[in-house]
Amino acid sequence: MEKLKHKILKEGKAIGTQIIKVDGFVNHQIDVKFMEELGEALAQRFAGEKVDKILTVESSGIAIACLTAPHFGYPPVVFAKKSVPNTLSEEFYHSEAKSFTKGTTSHIVVSRSFLSPGDRVLILDDFLAHGQASLALVRIIEQAQAHVAGVGIAIEKAFQGGRRKLEQEGLKVESLAIIDKIQDGKVFFG
Amino acid sequence: MEKLKHKILKEGKAIGTQIIKVDGFVNHQIDVKFMEELGEALAQRFAGEKVDKILTVESSGIAIACLTAPHFGYPPVVFAKKSVPNTLSEEFYHSEAKSFTKGTTSHIVVSRSFLSPGDRVLILDDFLAHGQASLALVRIIEQAQAHVAGVGIAIEKAFQGGRRKLEQEGLKVESLAIIDKIQDGKVFFG
Repeated sequence: MEKLKHKILKEGKAIGTQIIKVDGFVNHQIDVKFMEELGEALAQRFAGEKVDKILTVESSGIAIACLTAPHFGYPPVVFAKKSVPNTLSEEFYHSEAKSFTKGTTSHIVVSRSFLSPGDRVLILDDFLAHGQASLALVRIIEQAQAHVAGVGIAIEKAFQGGRRKLEQEGLKVESLAIIDKIQDGKVFFG
Repeated sequence: MEKLKHKILKEGKAIGTQIIKVDGFVNHQIDVKFMEELGEALAQRFAGEKVDKILTVESSGIAIACLTAPHFGYPPVVFAKKSVPNTLSEEFYHSEAKSFTKGTTSHIVVSRSFLSPGDRVLILDDFLAHGQASLALVRIIEQAQAHVAGVGIAIEKAFQGGRRKLEQEGLKVESLAIIDKIQDGKVFFG
């Protein structure tokens, strides 16, 4: 999506070789009108898919998930919560997502009430990097005996390999902007 | 808002005397179509107000903030982040919010980039309980030398006193559903 690439170039901040900060319109301050456009574009990538639920992770996936939902006829949007292991209980599906940037592991949980066997679940998120968050959501969907309808992403950092891991599981991955390289304060798209 | 009260009675779970769980449509699974209606109703309560920014706290305020924004002409939505004290820096405004339910204190931060002196900032959140989260946002808006345009809330637990604290600061508080009492698994509205 050219408009997203343009906005990343104009408003994003490239840091080192791994990080692109887009907290001015995606994950701290949200440009809602622009997010609506991203939602529409993501929905087009999965046009014709039956989507019973949309699943994302708090916090930064919530806006894009909510603004994509109208294009699928308003399926429920479920956001996985980051939790600490000692609060895990039988009420929840849970899974782990390692953060390569922070060197930490998040435990994410989804109440069993909100995913049902046979549900077709579309995973949406603002970023795809190493794929750990998306894979954690895939594991949760599997625990619920539901199906992954696909993985829709706003910004993919292709050089961190998340897509390969998801595609190896046979999943359809669609990203609106694919970054091949970050270097010297510049972003290079694929 | 009768429709919200009805939905709380139908889908909410009253626990003890302090808690009403609405994670089926507000803060774990989101009913986006219904949230759009809440956003429209909140906007009506502040009709005529000039709103330069909408401010909320992650995670559960994000959906309602994003779905209210269109009714004010799409001002930027900023969500304060919950942080740990050792990550505080000069880049951020910060404040503390005590959770009476969990017995913990959250440090919340907002980047200085996203609030400017003179901004008229509407605070939105899913819940008003003891008022700690809203007051923390008020403090951050003050640090930015901006103005609070008002505080808009989906569900207020009136018996926890948050409104009084905010009104003592001269702020306009609007809630779509006001709960007076929770008892024996039942919710009583004001």
